[in-house]
Amino acid sequence: MRVVIDWSATRLEAALVGGADDVVDRIGTDDGLKRAAGRHEAILDAALAPWRRTHGSLHILAAGMVGGRSGWMEIGYVPAPASLADIARAARHVALANGDRLTLIPGLCDPAAPPFPDVMRGEEAQLVGHGLQRDAVVVMPGNNGKWARIGGGRIAGFRTFVTGELVALLLAHSGLAGIAIRSEGRDWRAFARGLECAAGPDRHGLLTRLFTARTGWLAGQLAPAEIGDYLRGLLIGWEFIEARNAGLWLPGGTLDIVGDDDRVDDYRRAAEGLGLTARVAPDDTALRGALAIGAESMLLA
Amino acid sequence: MRVVIDWSATRLEAALVGGADDVVDRIGTDDGLKRAAGRHEAILDAALAPWRRTHGSLHILAAGMVGGRSGWMEIGYVPAPASLADIARAARHVALANGDRLTLIPGLCDPAAPPFPDVMRGEEAQLVGHGLQRDAVVVMPGNNGKWARIGGGRIAGFRTFVTGELVALLLAHSGLAGIAIRSEGRDWRAFARGLECAAGPDRHGLLTRLFTARTGWLAGQLAPAEIGDYLRGLLIGWEFIEARNAGLWLPGGTLDIVGDDDRVDDYRRAAEGLGLTARVAPDDTALRGALAIGAESMLLA
Repeated sequence: MRVVIDWSATRLEAALVGGADDVVDRIGTDDGLKRAAGRHEAILDAALAPWRRTHGSLHILAAGMVGGRSGWMEIGYVPAPASLADIARAARHVALANGDRLTLIPGLCDPAAPPFPDVMRGEEAQLVGHGLQRDAVVVMPGNNGKWARIGGGRIAGFRTFVTGELVALLLAHSGLAGIAIRSEGRDWRAFARGLECAAGPDRHGLLTRLFTARTGWLAGQLAPAEIGDYLRGLLIGWEFIEARNAGLWLPGGTLDIVGDDDRVDDYRRAAEGLGLTARVAPDDTALRGALAIGAESMLLA
Repeated sequence: MRVVIDWSATRLEAALVGGADDVVDRIGTDDGLKRAAGRHEAILDAALAPWRRTHGSLHILAAGMVGGRSGWMEIGYVPAPASLADIARAARHVALANGDRLTLIPGLCDPAAPPFPDVMRGEEAQLVGHGLQRDAVVVMPGNNGKWARIGGGRIAGFRTFVTGELVALLLAHSGLAGIAIRSEGRDWRAFARGLECAAGPDRHGLLTRLFTARTGWLAGQLAPAEIGDYLRGLLIGWEFIEARNAGLWLPGGTLDIVGDDDRVDDYRRAAEGLGLTARVAPDDTALRGALAIGAESMLLA
């Protein structure tokens, strides 16, 4: 049986996949990469033991951080443009002591990014799961989110935007941290006002607009409970403006949104607010992509 | 005798000024505004007691945070464009219980900033100290640094850039915090590489370029000890690019730099690296400005 794992800094999630590519069971533990140092194989062996007892040796497919510099086994980056076969060919197959087989999926780099190659790890599986057949521009929200171009059956290129990380940093540690009040859910009105500030005709850029979260509060125009979503709308909106300036979209166009958390809805609202048609992908693209890359790598082996 | 105070969140600094506007003594304590809540007058009374014993009642001049929302006595903002007389007229004079006289200098706002008025507190005194006679564009580096236009004897307008705060946040709390190694002094070569990345012809903006501090490290092109100054050069450089896009400077022009810490040198290097002539002001503009506003407010009283 195949198992697709998602091993992040703080969690180990695994899905057991049946013959029809159907998920038949799931497990999750708090044994993230941070606490797994030096014990990766033992932790994985123990976590998957129930499935191994029932189904015998497992074929484990892993993309993302587990193959990064602070992961388990470092695997390099395939340069874009890259097809499914290019990625599958670079996958690394490891025979584990317990008889399981581990397939590590490589990351992707874009050597055309100046001055250093841009990188992704895990998003390449999401893009494959989303499909490379149709030409598209795909945004994948995240701490270090990606905008990728799909063209001619390949991932043609991509760039990273540090939007999610900045939102979190500003709300947790900046001068706004002492003012903003966290609230449940989104205040979409505050989000829209932030988006409007990003898209407004001011000649000034992000470094100036970011200060409006404070001046709005000083002017009595932004309540403490509105600051978080105003800032989220402003930064996500500004990501769209930067992406537009880079030629990634035009008003009236279509944007594919790929992700599996509540940021997908933020990006859908931003896209629609800026005149784009948003196409939201199912939330299991990472799993679908890992299976597809695993299958292709078997064919090529 | 006059005393100019600089009361920040963490420090209280005071300068005793003689008849020829000469500083004859200085004191400083760790009784910043943060720990002074509810005890401002007593703390100031005690800190200045030695001078009061020698010279009698003092005339205390104060600009900056002390008049802000989390300061001692809140004083509003004078709207730009504003002359020395406009600022002096809005100053607030308070008779303290011990016989001292306190003159609170107001902040400045720029109502033309969308969507909320931009604000400064303390920098208006620096600008007055620098001089309003000559038309100029003045940059004042800081956590929330300012670019101001001086024209027709007035502070014509200004905008805030959150550059300094972002540099500090990213190095202390982002994914870079675990990688970057702090070093003494500046690595000007790393700073210049960051500046070059900011000024480079990539169509992508700040949210993408910020990720290069990480990709440079991943590519083995940026050493951990270089990341801090690379990021500093990148963000300060990007502030200049945004300021240029907003029409604040053109290559071949002249920029006045006003400040009193080592960021002045960062901005001088950035200005010169981008083809500007930098004019660095003396580091006592805040004191000179407070004295000038105090004197003018006496004339108007």
